[in-house]
Amino acid sequence: MSFSPLVDRLLESLRVLPGVGPKTAQRMALHLLEREREGGERLASVLAQALAEVGYCQRCRTLTEEELCGLCRSTRRDERLLCVVESPADMLAIEEAGGYSGQYFVLHGHLSPLDGIGPEDIGLDLLEARLAEDGVDEVILATNPTVEGEATAHYIATQLTGRQIRLSRLAYGVPMGGELEYVDGGTLSRAFNGRLPFSGE
Amino acid sequence: MSFSPLVDRLLESLRVLPGVGPKTAQRMALHLLEREREGGERLASVLAQALAEVGYCQRCRTLTEEELCGLCRSTRRDERLLCVVESPADMLAIEEAGGYSGQYFVLHGHLSPLDGIGPEDIGLDLLEARLAEDGVDEVILATNPTVEGEATAHYIATQLTGRQIRLSRLAYGVPMGGELEYVDGGTLSRAFNGRLPFSGE
Repeated sequence: MSFSPLVDRLLESLRVLPGVGPKTAQRMALHLLEREREGGERLASVLAQALAEVGYCQRCRTLTEEELCGLCRSTRRDERLLCVVESPADMLAIEEAGGYSGQYFVLHGHLSPLDGIGPEDIGLDLLEARLAEDGVDEVILATNPTVEGEATAHYIATQLTGRQIRLSRLAYGVPMGGELEYVDGGTLSRAFNGRLPFSGE
Repeated sequence: MSFSPLVDRLLESLRVLPGVGPKTAQRMALHLLEREREGGERLASVLAQALAEVGYCQRCRTLTEEELCGLCRSTRRDERLLCVVESPADMLAIEEAGGYSGQYFVLHGHLSPLDGIGPEDIGLDLLEARLAEDGVDEVILATNPTVEGEATAHYIATQLTGRQIRLSRLAYGVPMGGELEYVDGGTLSRAFNGRLPFSGE
């Protein structure tokens, strides 16, 4: 037994959403059909429009339906600083943390030769072209602190040697507000090696 | 800081889904835009189609895009038994449990005078009309064991007095596989009052 063919297709389609299994899909479909038809229609049309129109910013490759994203069009951002991140979500997290006033470049992933993901797939040709223009003093490699993120950062760093551009990487160490007891060994030994003079601030 | 206007609208639209807050909506939107465009397009079109075409079965009121649902068209179901449930999800749960071979009637809710939900809103006029036809011997009131579900069952029972129709209610008691320690007091005292002779089965 199941629902009608069309309702079953809706259940199945909802499962493309991350973290949505059969039970959640059923709850979502019944919720939309029984109580939220208007919201469901809006979702269907906005989703179709977003998929048709949203692409990459031509300058920083973040997701946008415009040619240039809001940050790239802004005149208030420091053009001498460029922060390279793996995803638009990372960019948003850094913006929400506050304190960074430069621009971004979004890779949409990391190098992964085994999956056939090479430099051009993560836009490194566009990054090169951008850095060839004058103006960027420092590139902050803010890829994830994972094996793949590190490898990608190293690859980019190798490509940029010879240019008059400072390279930096986000600081590693113990996270604020955490308890040492629960910090993993790799992070802890990095924090020891990178220890700083106590300033009493 | 936020995403582009269209991406922001997508985040907001996703929040009509039950259990989806800002963080999950962001994860879903980025997943669809970055890795699942095809699945997202299918979701948008199936959702729009389902909302446009899926209505209630004219006989049992379950969700279907056809005039009569599969169960009502089936010739294998016992027309003398009619099970009244609050939602299509309840109907599916009973079908999946197996063992019931009769037909259904879906209320899509329960009586709730304070919210302005009266007998016609839950299809009781259609239920009356169906029972006026000859054929149904027993009506199983399978509304939820909640205050509202009980009240709705009582209302339906009152309406049916005088007809040659048997009325029944699902058995109350301790759930199978549970531990007595964790069963709530109301259920436990119901199970005591409704105790059965030990058959040794």
